[in-house]
Amino acid sequence: MTDTVISSHKKEVVIGFERPFVVIGERINPTGRKLLAAEMAAGDFSRVISDVHAQLEAGAHMLDVNAGIPLADEPAILAETVKLVQSLTDVPLSIDSSIVAALEAGLAVYQGKALVNSVTGEEDRLETVLPLVKKYGAAVVAISNDETGISQDPEVRFQIARKIVNRAADHGIPACDVVVDPLVMPIGAVATAGRQVFELCHRLQKELKVNTTCGASNVSFGLPNRNGINAAFMSMAIASGMTSAITNPLHAEIMSAIMGADVLMGHDQDCMRWIRKFREVPPAGADGAEARGRRETRRRRATA
Amino acid sequence: MTDTVISSHKKEVVIGFERPFVVIGERINPTGRKLLAAEMAAGDFSRVISDVHAQLEAGAHMLDVNAGIPLADEPAILAETVKLVQSLTDVPLSIDSSIVAALEAGLAVYQGKALVNSVTGEEDRLETVLPLVKKYGAAVVAISNDETGISQDPEVRFQIARKIVNRAADHGIPACDVVVDPLVMPIGAVATAGRQVFELCHRLQKELKVNTTCGASNVSFGLPNRNGINAAFMSMAIASGMTSAITNPLHAEIMSAIMGADVLMGHDQDCMRWIRKFREVPPAGADGAEARGRRETRRRRATA
Repeated sequence: MTDTVISSHKKEVVIGFERPFVVIGERINPTGRKLLAAEMAAGDFSRVISDVHAQLEAGAHMLDVNAGIPLADEPAILAETVKLVQSLTDVPLSIDSSIVAALEAGLAVYQGKALVNSVTGEEDRLETVLPLVKKYGAAVVAISNDETGISQDPEVRFQIARKIVNRAADHGIPACDVVVDPLVMPIGAVATAGRQVFELCHRLQKELKVNTTCGASNVSFGLPNRNGINAAFMSMAIASGMTSAITNPLHAEIMSAIMGADVLMGHDQDCMRWIRKFREVPPAGADGAEARGRRETRRRRATA
Repeated sequence: MTDTVISSHKKEVVIGFERPFVVIGERINPTGRKLLAAEMAAGDFSRVISDVHAQLEAGAHMLDVNAGIPLADEPAILAETVKLVQSLTDVPLSIDSSIVAALEAGLAVYQGKALVNSVTGEEDRLETVLPLVKKYGAAVVAISNDETGISQDPEVRFQIARKIVNRAADHGIPACDVVVDPLVMPIGAVATAGRQVFELCHRLQKELKVNTTCGASNVSFGLPNRNGINAAFMSMAIASGMTSAITNPLHAEIMSAIMGADVLMGHDQDCMRWIRKFREVPPAGADGAEARGRRETRRRRATA
């Protein structure tokens, strides 16, 4: 049992082996969103605000905040975005940048215990990001690649994860504050991408005893019906022990796949979250007529 | 690697660890379908015919045929249904009854190597069903319960499966012709039902080296949005090693969950089955506008 506690000034979210899966909304990220990038660079945060509300409404438990805009002042924009988002919601944030100065700027204004996204197994990243994580008392996403790139051998990725966990310990960061991203490759390019992740999630939980996350949407890159692949992937990753993901909560199929997997793992007590969310959905009866009959009854009651 | 070959007079379907998941359509079954039961008892098979076509259209690889109608002449009706279905399609059939005389009547008219559904670990079932399976050179679904009922302990269910596999061998039936059903309980009643099945699928493949199947729809009994639970369950069961299921192919979410899981297990070569099925579905772009743009382009091309 490993619990990773992330918090804002008012609210805690716990990522853990025997807890409901934690959905970290991925939308506040200008990468690949030209319009959002231009707006954020120009100081227009209206789309960030609507993305905050839409993702919370859709059921996100945390939000990832990224301000990676080419040629812009990323540290300043990330800090401003973090402050703005925290003024709108009390869900905890993941502060996301590949620029260490931007991570520090975000952490400096963040209220609570953030999730830093991310550190890799590269020497220079380990020795610049981990001291920051320690300084601000944060948790960190550990991505299992290093100077040699991304290995297709799950054993190599597992050993990089172990190295990061050990190095974090050297910096005074406990393993429960390291959330490993086993790296999700596009299944259209790497046929073993799914099984690599499933095997790694299992080993990371059983052997390293750490929580896990991933950038889930990447798995379906280049394929049609991406939500269909993403939904199946989420359920399978949860069955394999994954405990959180940075993904798009606005897609109903993905949220249904995650919430259904929580039910099937026994992580949704008495199925209450499922029932609350879906009790108005007509049940799939043995015959359509039966479901229609129930809908009719409800409609009559509603208008009575 | 264990391959279970099922066939009709013209066509083979292979259930196996490294093959696409086999969907056995569940619809030709009067249990809980009063209208179908009354029609079949009266010799009206029009709904059976439409169920055959609809399930094949939806992507079923095999069809289950059941004629369990109270107070009716089940052996005669099952035999007639089997003959009818085989005249309509060349996909192999699973012959489904709890009455041994009905199984024999179905097997006597079946052309090919059928899947007999089912035998349990009960002494009298073992000693009446297995000789039939051997006599007709069929394969058999082995349900992991016995005289003591259905255990909530996966170890007990595993040992019953082992007993059935061993007894089948005594009757000259190889393990590759025994497809174990680990038993799927409703998750709304038994919170551990999902994890029991996932653990059993894994052990049945690794230790007993047998293929697996289940009556999948049972898992969502009593819950709203049953298709959502069933879809998550299918993806998770496939991740755990399940190789076939008796389920309803008419629900698009369930077929998408199965086909997506095949992609992610690396069982859909170059994702070709997925791409063929979904290439007309608009991709989920980073921004809605992008996806809409692509749809527009396609529409213009289609009308050009």
